[in-house]
Amino acid sequence: MKIAITGGAGFLGKKLARSLLDDNALGVEELVLADMVAAPDELTGDARVRSVVGDVTDADLLADVVQADTDSVFHLAAVVSAGAEADFDLGMAVNLDATRTILDLARKHGNAPRIVFSSSCAVYGGDLPEVVSDNQQITPQNSYGVQKAIGELLVNDYSRKGYLDGRCLRYPTVVVRPGKPNKAASTFASSIIREPLQGEAAVCPVKAETEMWLASPRTIVANTRHAHDIDAGAWGPWRTVPLPGFTATVRGMVDALEAVAGAEVASRVQWEPDPVIEKIVYGWPTRLDTARADTMGFKRDTDMESIIRAFIEDELDGVVK
Amino acid sequence: MKIAITGGAGFLGKKLARSLLDDNALGVEELVLADMVAAPDELTGDARVRSVVGDVTDADLLADVVQADTDSVFHLAAVVSAGAEADFDLGMAVNLDATRTILDLARKHGNAPRIVFSSSCAVYGGDLPEVVSDNQQITPQNSYGVQKAIGELLVNDYSRKGYLDGRCLRYPTVVVRPGKPNKAASTFASSIIREPLQGEAAVCPVKAETEMWLASPRTIVANTRHAHDIDAGAWGPWRTVPLPGFTATVRGMVDALEAVAGAEVASRVQWEPDPVIEKIVYGWPTRLDTARADTMGFKRDTDMESIIRAFIEDELDGVVK
Repeated sequence: MKIAITGGAGFLGKKLARSLLDDNALGVEELVLADMVAAPDELTGDARVRSVVGDVTDADLLADVVQADTDSVFHLAAVVSAGAEADFDLGMAVNLDATRTILDLARKHGNAPRIVFSSSCAVYGGDLPEVVSDNQQITPQNSYGVQKAIGELLVNDYSRKGYLDGRCLRYPTVVVRPGKPNKAASTFASSIIREPLQGEAAVCPVKAETEMWLASPRTIVANTRHAHDIDAGAWGPWRTVPLPGFTATVRGMVDALEAVAGAEVASRVQWEPDPVIEKIVYGWPTRLDTARADTMGFKRDTDMESIIRAFIEDELDGVVK
Repeated sequence: MKIAITGGAGFLGKKLARSLLDDNALGVEELVLADMVAAPDELTGDARVRSVVGDVTDADLLADVVQADTDSVFHLAAVVSAGAEADFDLGMAVNLDATRTILDLARKHGNAPRIVFSSSCAVYGGDLPEVVSDNQQITPQNSYGVQKAIGELLVNDYSRKGYLDGRCLRYPTVVVRPGKPNKAASTFASSIIREPLQGEAAVCPVKAETEMWLASPRTIVANTRHAHDIDAGAWGPWRTVPLPGFTATVRGMVDALEAVAGAEVASRVQWEPDPVIEKIVYGWPTRLDTARADTMGFKRDTDMESIIRAFIEDELDGVVK
């Protein structure tokens, strides 16, 4: 199988690549990792991996990534929430136009590749009920959410027309991400766990009682693969699903940090509300009834402490500073 | 006030233009009517009217239509349902790309013009409840509906960013349209009334018990103007509204025709189901709870007989053949 991952050198792209290569359930012959930076040696050391470096707004680059014999594309590359809000044109170019270029390449090739599209709960916004159902209309209040919603619509229509076999996932906020903060408005949700565990201070820009809808990297990788692997028939006429998550307050996240790593580590979180971040984050849903995803067999995390322990194991070699 | 109407020589564009010119409530200084064909003499005879002929996929044409001092745009031009389904690229070019060009022109000019965007109940599809609420998620099952849904999302986001002041209307099926059948899958809904009234046979391609969600041309023009005229504040964070309509079966429509014009006229309707049309039409919602539109002051038709009488008055000079 020939597989491509856009955003393949990003946090999720790398984990997905590692997972696909390791168990080789799909019989990977080639795994293309496309990103602004080269994939790490740890991945490119595998002879099946081809690293493609460049911008997804470059149609020639995408033509090299999505070829006539590409079986599956995981389209993860995106300008994230605060980034798309700050630079409207960049968000449109990456989140909308590049997505459309990928879909048009698939259509041109005529081989109906399987395409997994990373959407987001940022598609929700405006006046939301306390619990968001699968039937909730989406009224996004940020450009990232709008662009992701448009991507969902396009993937659905191209699938309906038989041009490709698409699957769209509305990701919860993923914690704990390794690495550095990014331009997502939600980046603090990982920072307030990750940095204190490594002896550094971290700023929480929202109030302690703020609720968030969360999922762990392990679960996200498993659910992204599940979305790809299940039959097209399981999707029915709508190839978009909000993924299961769980609700925690930021205070509850820091309490879990204290329970796992002690009071000194937890005290490294500083509370400095930022109105710009608050405005975006407070618009997101915090409780979803994901009945459809549950029926389709997607997994769910249950608690923050387990996620923090998994992060320490996966990313810190078990060592807390 | 300087106003532009795309699709300005179409059925709705002409009626809207006539209405805007006649009462002049907006103080029309210039009314640009852009379409594939010239606006009729009846309209261009008014010194305030400028007819622009060409294709809305032509960016230069749109730049001539949406200028830096354009106060309001009624963007009605579209490739309709069966047309967009038959020619995917044309639908994308007209319904998506041309819409985006108009929004980008407004953004470039920086004068935040008021833009009324004609969307459609074709955005609904898939598994729908018996009564569709304002909160219904949209899962369109035809390319026209997808492209209109994307237009709505874009108009909303450009409005939220302050680039323009947009208002999106999900039109019911409009009956009775004057003129000739078009490429809309719903075109028969007008044909089965219009043609028999003029002594001609008409084919109904769906079953007699098929329900439809309907509105009259008079109400559509009034509601389109109302959408334009009300304050931005009345729209809140979501600038899209499904318009009020009423539910009738095709049989009920023909019964109303018989009540108004007699059994001989009604007998000119021929029942010949067409699976392609049926598949599209059966996917549309037939009952909507339009609470939001009602609160916002939009009007509603009540019965088919009144609509047929208005058609005979407005379009046939009172004469039935």
